[in-house]
Amino acid sequence: MARVLSFDPIAEARRQWDQHWGGEATPSMVAVTSIMRAQQIIMARLNELLEPLDLTFPRYEALMLLFYSRRGQLPLGKISDRLQVHRASVTNVVDKLVASGYVERVQHGRDRRAVLASITAEGRIAARKATKRLNAAHFGTAPLDTEACEGLYAELTPLRAGAGDYELTGDAES
Amino acid sequence: MARVLSFDPIAEARRQWDQHWGGEATPSMVAVTSIMRAQQIIMARLNELLEPLDLTFPRYEALMLLFYSRRGQLPLGKISDRLQVHRASVTNVVDKLVASGYVERVQHGRDRRAVLASITAEGRIAARKATKRLNAAHFGTAPLDTEACEGLYAELTPLRAGAGDYELTGDAES
Repeated sequence: MARVLSFDPIAEARRQWDQHWGGEATPSMVAVTSIMRAQQIIMARLNELLEPLDLTFPRYEALMLLFYSRRGQLPLGKISDRLQVHRASVTNVVDKLVASGYVERVQHGRDRRAVLASITAEGRIAARKATKRLNAAHFGTAPLDTEACEGLYAELTPLRAGAGDYELTGDAES
Repeated sequence: MARVLSFDPIAEARRQWDQHWGGEATPSMVAVTSIMRAQQIIMARLNELLEPLDLTFPRYEALMLLFYSRRGQLPLGKISDRLQVHRASVTNVVDKLVASGYVERVQHGRDRRAVLASITAEGRIAARKATKRLNAAHFGTAPLDTEACEGLYAELTPLRAGAGDYELTGDAES
């Protein structure tokens, strides 16, 4: 991986933006660059934590969705809606979970075209082990404390809501 | 793309975590899930803004690095260090920039093995146009305001520093 720099590359970009582009867009530039880099750092940490369990973070997210679903099974389209990822990515993730023995594909009872992903007993064990590992490692967020984590969640909520991820209509679904 | 949900999936995950895992790791889980989703939303917006210029955000980042370099050219290894991405990804990004006519590969004067990426006149025009587009769109951060953007930058700085991206030694490089 890359060498350690003797300066903060985002602070350097801030200097360039203020100097050459008037500074009006600088806060958004530094926020976006920080989010991109934070995502890379955290994803690498999570994948390292999950690797011994034959999981990646996207696979873990899909597995937990099944783990907490009422019947332990969901149509692939619903997984796509809940994780807000494209159907092709969900198919790929489910393929990998099937290969690991954590998920089985089953035919939907009434609709023969609909395929359900169903968590296996082994999948439930892996889901619990993975969650314990991630919880113990605070999801790779070190050195951020509780306050910083809650601050990030709160600050990013309007972005997610504004992007059409969900619409609060008053009735909560589970 | 996925349908709009009638509930916030991260608020729902928070409920599950508090109920089943004691709640100690909940703030880190909601922060990480929010960062992952924010990154997806913003990356999609940036790529849409850049698409008419035959750029993606990773290609734009590499192009701007060359744009602001003293001689308009940098070794691929240095681009990798500055963007904190693997060398293979940099090679891929530079290949795409070469295909668009924005960058040329040139031989390093002294070291015949070292390859430099050099920004072309067309690349400089594209860099300016792209920056104007991204600045005007506040880098896809709507509806976040300046305060929220600066808050995100500040909160994520200890994470980037702790991940070994850079070490402040007192002497700033440009």
